Amino acid sequence: MVRFNYPLCLPFSLFLNLLFLSSFIHRQLQLSWSQKSAEEAEQVAAIPCSGHGHAYLDGVTDQGKPICECNSCYSGSDCSEFLPHCFADAVEGDPLYLEPFWIEHATSSAVMVPGWHRMSYTMPNQSIISAELEKYIRRLHVVVGNAISEGKFIVFGVGSSQLLHAALYALAKSSRSPEPTNVVASAPYYMLYKDQTEIFNSKDFEWKGDASLWKNMSNNNSSKNFIEFVTSPNNPDGQLQHSILQGSSVKTIYDHAYYWPHYSAIPAPANEDLMIFTLSKVTGHAGSRFGWALIKDEDVYQRMAGYVDINTMGVSRDTQLRALELLKVILEDGGRAFFDFGYKTLKQRWRRLSQTITSSKHFSLQNLSSQYCTYFQTDHEPSPAYAWLKCEREEDWDCYAVLKNAGIIGRRGSNFGAEDHYVRLSLLKSSDDLNLLMQRLDDLVFKVIAKVI
Amino acid sequence: MVRFNYPLCLPFSLFLNLLFLSSFIHRQLQLSWSQKSAEEAEQVAAIPCSGHGHAYLDGVTDQGKPICECNSCYSGSDCSEFLPHCFADAVEGDPLYLEPFWIEHATSSAVMVPGWHRMSYTMPNQSIISAELEKYIRRLHVVVGNAISEGKFIVFGVGSSQLLHAALYALAKSSRSPEPTNVVASAPYYMLYKDQTEIFNSKDFEWKGDASLWKNMSNNNSSKNFIEFVTSPNNPDGQLQHSILQGSSVKTIYDHAYYWPHYSAIPAPANEDLMIFTLSKVTGHAGSRFGWALIKDEDVYQRMAGYVDINTMGVSRDTQLRALELLKVILEDGGRAFFDFGYKTLKQRWRRLSQTITSSKHFSLQNLSSQYCTYFQTDHEPSPAYAWLKCEREEDWDCYAVLKNAGIIGRRGSNFGAEDHYVRLSLLKSSDDLNLLMQRLDDLVFKVIAKVI
Repeated sequence: MVRFNYPLCLPFSLFLNLLFLSSFIHRQLQLSWSQKSAEEAEQVAAIPCSGHGHAYLDGVTDQGKPICECNSCYSGSDCSEFLPHCFADAVEGDPLYLEPFWIEHATSSAVMVPGWHRMSYTMPNQSIISAELEKYIRRLHVVVGNAISEGKFIVFGVGSSQLLHAALYALAKSSRSPEPTNVVASAPYYMLYKDQTEIFNSKDFEWKGDASLWKNMSNNNSSKNFIEFVTSPNNPDGQLQHSILQGSSVKTIYDHAYYWPHYSAIPAPANEDLMIFTLSKVTGHAGSRFGWALIKDEDVYQRMAGYVDINTMGVSRDTQLRALELLKVILEDGGRAFFDFGYKTLKQRWRRLSQTITSSKHFSLQNLSSQYCTYFQTDHEPSPAYAWLKCEREEDWDCYAVLKNAGIIGRRGSNFGAEDHYVRLSLLKSSDDLNLLMQRLDDLVFKVIAKVI
Repeated sequence: MVRFNYPLCLPFSLFLNLLFLSSFIHRQLQLSWSQKSAEEAEQVAAIPCSGHGHAYLDGVTDQGKPICECNSCYSGSDCSEFLPHCFADAVEGDPLYLEPFWIEHATSSAVMVPGWHRMSYTMPNQSIISAELEKYIRRLHVVVGNAISEGKFIVFGVGSSQLLHAALYALAKSSRSPEPTNVVASAPYYMLYKDQTEIFNSKDFEWKGDASLWKNMSNNNSSKNFIEFVTSPNNPDGQLQHSILQGSSVKTIYDHAYYWPHYSAIPAPANEDLMIFTLSKVTGHAGSRFGWALIKDEDVYQRMAGYVDINTMGVSRDTQLRALELLKVILEDGGRAFFDFGYKTLKQRWRRLSQTITSSKHFSLQNLSSQYCTYFQTDHEPSPAYAWLKCEREEDWDCYAVLKNAGIIGRRGSNFGAEDHYVRLSLLKSSDDLNLLMQRLDDLVFKVIAKVI
C-alpha cells in the first residue's frame, strides 16, 4: 500500500494552486458569442499548405473541412508538389505581394463581424458610406501626401471599376451638346476604359481610342466634347502622366490606382478635379472590391453618387468595415512599415527583372528612372506594378507568342491599344509566381544569348 | 500569532486544486491572432443603447470609442430619449425586422475575417464566385422549394440591383433587331427598372412603362422586341405575378426578391429562364449588397457574368464569406427557426395594420388572401413586405401629403408608375419604426372616424 507523505503534499498542493492562480490571472478575456467563429478562423488558418497556398473559411471542402487552395503551379493536399510544366502566369495585376505583410500583422488586421452588423441600407444621416472610413481615407492622403482631399467630395465604389463608369456617366451628362462625347485615353491604356464606354451602346458617349490622335481637334476649342482617361502612374508602363488634351471642351478622369509609394515616387500631391483610387492596389485587397473618388465639383459628385446608388445601392458595408480596419493598421506608424515593405518588394523585383532583360538585345523594358519622393524623403527607385516588355526583333511581332513558347503568359500589347510587339507582365503576384516568371525569363534570355554565341 | 491547522489546510488546498483543474479543463480554447478583434467586437456590441440603437465597430466615435447610433426617433447617448415630433418613416424596405433573429443567433452568425482573407481577384479555377456559397444557395432553394436551381447557371451580383441591370444588358444584346428593345413592367412596379433602363441612354433599349399597354402589340408577334420585368411577389403590393406579354419577341426577367416564406406562400418552385434573388430580403442583410441570378440559357449567363466583371469585377469576397455563414445558420434546421420568425413577425404586423385600416372607409389596403404554402405545409396568411395603401376619397389624390400631415412618410404611388392616391408603407423596418407607424395610423384613422361621428 502506498503511503502519502503528508508534510510534502501540502507544499506541493499549494504550489499547484499558485500556478493555477497565476494562469487564471493572466488568462485571456473570456469571450462569449465571438469565441466560436474566432476558433474556427484560427483552425482553418492553421491548416498547413507548405507556404504555397492557404485554406480559407469559405474554401473548397473535403468532408466538410476546408482544404488547401494552392498557388498556381503547386498541387497536392498540402500544396507541396511543384508542377514543372506549368505556365508562369503573369497576366493579372493580383496584388498578392502584399499578403505576407497582412499575415505578419494578423492580430491588428483581423475583423470580427457580428451577425447583425449594419443590416440596413443606410448608416447615420441616411448615408451609404461610413463616415469613419471616409475620415481614415482623408487622413491616409494627408500622411502619404499623394492627393489633396480637402475641399473635395468623396464617393465610395465597388472597386475603382465602378467609379470609372460612374465618372464617365457623370461627366458625359454634364455636357449640353446633343452630340455624343468622345472618350479617349493615351495608348498604351487600361482596356477597361474602352469596355465600359462601349458596353451600353450609349447615345451620350463613344470610344475614340488613342488621345494623341485628337490633340489638335480639342485644342481648336471645337464644339466636340471630350473625356480623357489618364492613368498615372500608367497601367501598363508605370509612367507618371498628365492629360494630353486641353481646352474647355475636355474633362479628365484621373485614375490614380498606382499613385502610392510602393509603386511610384510621390513628387507632389495630386490635385485634379476628379481622382479615383482603389484599395486593391493600396492595401492589396483586390478581392474586397473597394475604391473611392475625390471630386471637386458638386454636380459631378451628385451624379456619381446617384449612379452608384442606382447601380448597386452603394458598397458592401462589410467591406467598408474591413477597409477601415486595414487602413488603421497602415496608419499606426504613418504607413512606414507598410509602404517600406511594399516598395522594397517591388524594387527588388524590378532590379532582378531589369538585370535579366538588359542582358539581351532581343527584349527591352520601359524606361523608368529614380525620382525624389516626398513621402520617403529620398530618391525613389523604379518599383512599377508591371513590366511593359517589348520583343525588339521585327519577326517577334507577336511577343505574346514568343513568351508563351517560353512558358510565360502575359497580356498582349493590343489589349492596351498598343502593338503586339509589347506584352504586359504583372510583378504584383505572389513570390511563387514571381520566382517562376524570373526563372523562365532567365531561361529565355539565356537561350537567346546562347544562340547568338 | 495565528497557528495554521495543518490537517485542515491540506483538504482545503486539494479542493482548490480540483476546482482550478476543472476550470482549466473547461476553459475556452486559447486564441492567438483573433483574440484582440473578437474582444473589440464584443466590447462594442456590449455598449448599452436601450434597445433603440446599436454601437458599431465602424460607427461614429467619441474620443476614439464608438457610440450608440439610435433608431429613427430616438436620441441621447444611450438612445433612451424618444423624439415625439419625429415622422414615422416607412419609406425604405430596410429589413431590420430580422435583426433580433441574428442577435439571438450571435454565436453561429459571427464571422472572423483574417487580414489576408482572399486578397486575390480570383478564387480557385479563376472563378470570382465562391463555390461553397453557390452550393449553399442551391441547397437553400431545394430546402425552401421556391425555385428550381438545378440545370441553371448562377451569377453573383452586388445586390439584385446589379443583376437587374446585367439581365437587361444581356437580354437586349441577344436581340438581333437594329431597333431598340422595349422595356416594360406592369404598374405598380419597382422604379429601379425604369431608372436603370434610362441611365445610360442606350441605343439598345428604351423604357416604355406599363406592360399592359403593350399587350396587344407583343401578341401580334410584331418585329418589336420586349423585355418585361416581373416582380413576384410584387413590390409594392405583394401579389404573385406572371408576365403579361407573351410571344417569341418577349423576354422576361423575374425579380423574386420577395419569393420567400416570410413574405409569401410558396405554391410551387419557380422555374423561369431568368430569376433574380437578393440576400437583402432573405436574411435581411441589405447592407451587405449581395444577390444572385439563376439563368437557363448559357449565352445569357455568359453576358451577365461579363457585365458584372466589367462593372465591378464581381462581388466583395468578404461579403461572399459572410453570406455563406448566414446561410449556414438558416439551413441548420432546414430554415424552420428563421422563416418561422420572419413569417410570424410580418403576419402580426399585417394583421395589426389591416385591423386599423379596415375600420375606416377613407383608406384601403391591397387585397391579399391566405394560400397553401408548400414550405410550411399549411395555409400561409398574408405577410407582405409593404402596405400599398390607398386614400379612397377623391380629394385625397395626394395620399402622400395626407399621410405626411399625420406624421407618416411613405413612398408616393407615382414612384411606382401608379396614381398618387396610393402610398407604399414599409413593414420591414425595426419594431420601433413599426410601433410609431401604427400609433400614427391609429391616430389618423381615429381622427377620421371621430370627424365622421
